[in-house]
Amino acid sequence: MQHRYQIIQPGWTITVNSGFEVLRDFAVVLEDNRIQTLIANDAVTELPCYEQAEIIRLPNCALMPGLVNSHTHASMGLFRGIADDLPLMEWLTAHIWPAETRWVDAQFTADGFMLAAAEMMRSGTTCLNDMYYFPDTAARCAQAIGMRSVIGLIVLDFPSVWARDADEYLHKALAAHDEIRELPLVSSAFAPHAPYTVSDESLRLVAMYSSELDVPVHMHVHETAAEVAEAQQKTGLRPLERLDQLNLLNSNLIAVHMTELDEFEIERIAEAGVSVAHCPESNLKLGSGICPVATLLERGVNLCLGTDGAASNNDLDLLGEMRTAALLAKGSSGNASACNARQSIEMATINGARALGLADRIGSIEAGKYADLIAIDLSGLNTQPVYDPVAQIVYAAASRQVSHVWIDGVIQLRDFEFCRLDSDEIVARAASWAQKIRS
Amino acid sequence: MQHRYQIIQPGWTITVNSGFEVLRDFAVVLEDNRIQTLIANDAVTELPCYEQAEIIRLPNCALMPGLVNSHTHASMGLFRGIADDLPLMEWLTAHIWPAETRWVDAQFTADGFMLAAAEMMRSGTTCLNDMYYFPDTAARCAQAIGMRSVIGLIVLDFPSVWARDADEYLHKALAAHDEIRELPLVSSAFAPHAPYTVSDESLRLVAMYSSELDVPVHMHVHETAAEVAEAQQKTGLRPLERLDQLNLLNSNLIAVHMTELDEFEIERIAEAGVSVAHCPESNLKLGSGICPVATLLERGVNLCLGTDGAASNNDLDLLGEMRTAALLAKGSSGNASACNARQSIEMATINGARALGLADRIGSIEAGKYADLIAIDLSGLNTQPVYDPVAQIVYAAASRQVSHVWIDGVIQLRDFEFCRLDSDEIVARAASWAQKIRS
Repeated sequence: MQHRYQIIQPGWTITVNSGFEVLRDFAVVLEDNRIQTLIANDAVTELPCYEQAEIIRLPNCALMPGLVNSHTHASMGLFRGIADDLPLMEWLTAHIWPAETRWVDAQFTADGFMLAAAEMMRSGTTCLNDMYYFPDTAARCAQAIGMRSVIGLIVLDFPSVWARDADEYLHKALAAHDEIRELPLVSSAFAPHAPYTVSDESLRLVAMYSSELDVPVHMHVHETAAEVAEAQQKTGLRPLERLDQLNLLNSNLIAVHMTELDEFEIERIAEAGVSVAHCPESNLKLGSGICPVATLLERGVNLCLGTDGAASNNDLDLLGEMRTAALLAKGSSGNASACNARQSIEMATINGARALGLADRIGSIEAGKYADLIAIDLSGLNTQPVYDPVAQIVYAAASRQVSHVWIDGVIQLRDFEFCRLDSDEIVARAASWAQKIRS
Repeated sequence: MQHRYQIIQPGWTITVNSGFEVLRDFAVVLEDNRIQTLIANDAVTELPCYEQAEIIRLPNCALMPGLVNSHTHASMGLFRGIADDLPLMEWLTAHIWPAETRWVDAQFTADGFMLAAAEMMRSGTTCLNDMYYFPDTAARCAQAIGMRSVIGLIVLDFPSVWARDADEYLHKALAAHDEIRELPLVSSAFAPHAPYTVSDESLRLVAMYSSELDVPVHMHVHETAAEVAEAQQKTGLRPLERLDQLNLLNSNLIAVHMTELDEFEIERIAEAGVSVAHCPESNLKLGSGICPVATLLERGVNLCLGTDGAASNNDLDLLGEMRTAALLAKGSSGNASACNARQSIEMATINGARALGLADRIGSIEAGKYADLIAIDLSGLNTQPVYDPVAQIVYAAASRQVSHVWIDGVIQLRDFEFCRLDSDEIVARAASWAQKIRS
């Protein structure tokens, strides 16, 4: 079989390898869907593949690993802006849950997933970790458009558009898991919604399946102080304590939000290898609380970043989320050195990959990894001059400056334009849903 | 004299009038540099000026008042990214002040001002409130490129590239004020840097001149808890108390940052009509503290928004700042209804105009006001679907979606492209400064 070679020559290569090397005037060579090598520009013509390779020169751009959105509800993009300026429980119970009951089906999930995936791709996200209804549909969409995805197998105790009861959720989860195993770009995670919506019995089964199949568990945990207080009142236990008893505190767990943590809990999750998916903009917008990022980074907890759904953010811009995470960690800890620009990029790339069990495949620019890459054009007014491309990306760049996106070696965005997606059609479908929902 | 007419027909008109009316399918009619009238689209052809007018149809766009950046140090854009992840005093004394001493002159100020003004214009800011050295140079630049500006007449006690001592600062301030009075787009404000860098004697003179000339006073106040504590130790007074004794607490004062406020102070500034320029991203990034926005809004304090300089933000994107302000007010108060989308837009428009003494001229779309307007294209993936254009602008839109900008009736940005500014030249000048500074 003929191999396909692409040679990308950016101004800067932000490798996000273990030494966080930033290379000036290097070439990144792709063979098919993988990174073959990194080589100085002045040696690139000596490569055996040089003659057959496509050469992509990006002197104004920084190349970095594609962003990993570690927590989202992609299809909720169709509800973006239906209810704002409200606290979490009122937003959920008075607006989101009723709208979901009325509108969500497989077609809604598909159209919403496409809108979200396109928005994410356009803004530099190359892998998303989703939690929503109709995971089988979402998985097929992801594979069809070439978006690397981890699809959450939703588990709840109450009936929804997707399943009637805990048994049916679990049954459908295992069926979807089997189907998803056949999709090369997609993998699955168990997604019990939250401690307050899933019973001990279901959680025990999730823990067992997760361990047997070595699949991550993706769950909202300690999103607000009220959640923790109510659980204590009802069960005598804080939710994390309960999850610990149910064998869920381990390196398979991606605990989302985690705004409410005491000293003991921080030690426990650090020791257990739990990943924390921090969603700063959603937490701020819903007044949910603030995750103690500075402390978690100090303790070596694997912190990754998510946008949450577009109904509570309201964009899916992980570059913006990196910046908010860095600023909020400094502001909330009173320490301007907390969560520096490099740590913020690690959270959005290699740490996300690690949480999803994909760190050997994506999350950094290193030979052998899959080519999930993005180029950010720093020539705009707002990113000039360039003293430090890393600071520029985190503190000044806008996601519209993402000029090129590769996922699994396939170029999805070139010179700011989609190569494969039809964004007009995606927007038209979203607008037609909005017309129905509004009326 | 022949009048010039422009008729803008946006999808939505966000007037920011006192009732915060959002009009669907209305036309905004400009006569020369002013808004002549607002009229329903289906009646627009009956206007006497219709035949001679330029018609600008923007069905995918929301039209709103241009943004007012109430606190910036425009020329510091040339230092963007030289020192990040550091606390305020270390950042100032070890990095910024030495760099300023070494590099700042009239040419630096001019080139930096152009970079910043272009970045702001591109992202929807039509009026800026500046504080920096060489205010005469900045004022001439602003007038030359057509950027409405309030230029701070800097006052310090210590020598700098601009003046040797307090006397010379004040002398130069008054001279610059006289020069600026001749520039139609520019006005001036006294800009004593901060309570800890300006003596009682100078502040008394500033208060007197401000009152005599009816000119705003633009000053960093209570930026950090440490500033307040040190002042108490040295003088026995909190800085606001001292400013009160010096007759500075009145409606001419734009107090910037204000992260550290007690109950008594909040009441006092509300009663005195002091405006607060909130700079959430700078405050977070430098770990300075968090302005109590939710409380200040409740008490009716005139809150406006600033980006601060690009060396501490690191962009000059007021649309992003609106979003951060809304999210941070909710997150820090624990109240998701605090600082809603409308209040956030008011802070960035009419409240800024009020702080600068320009509320009768700009800050809303109302007949008779100057035509400082921006159009935001909501057709992008990240702002679809549109249930509520106001929420969409604050919580989802990116500044790159600003498609058109008018300042004083002059179109400065059309279909995302500058009409008058040469941004390549501006970027080239910035890059050449960076080369010198880096070496």
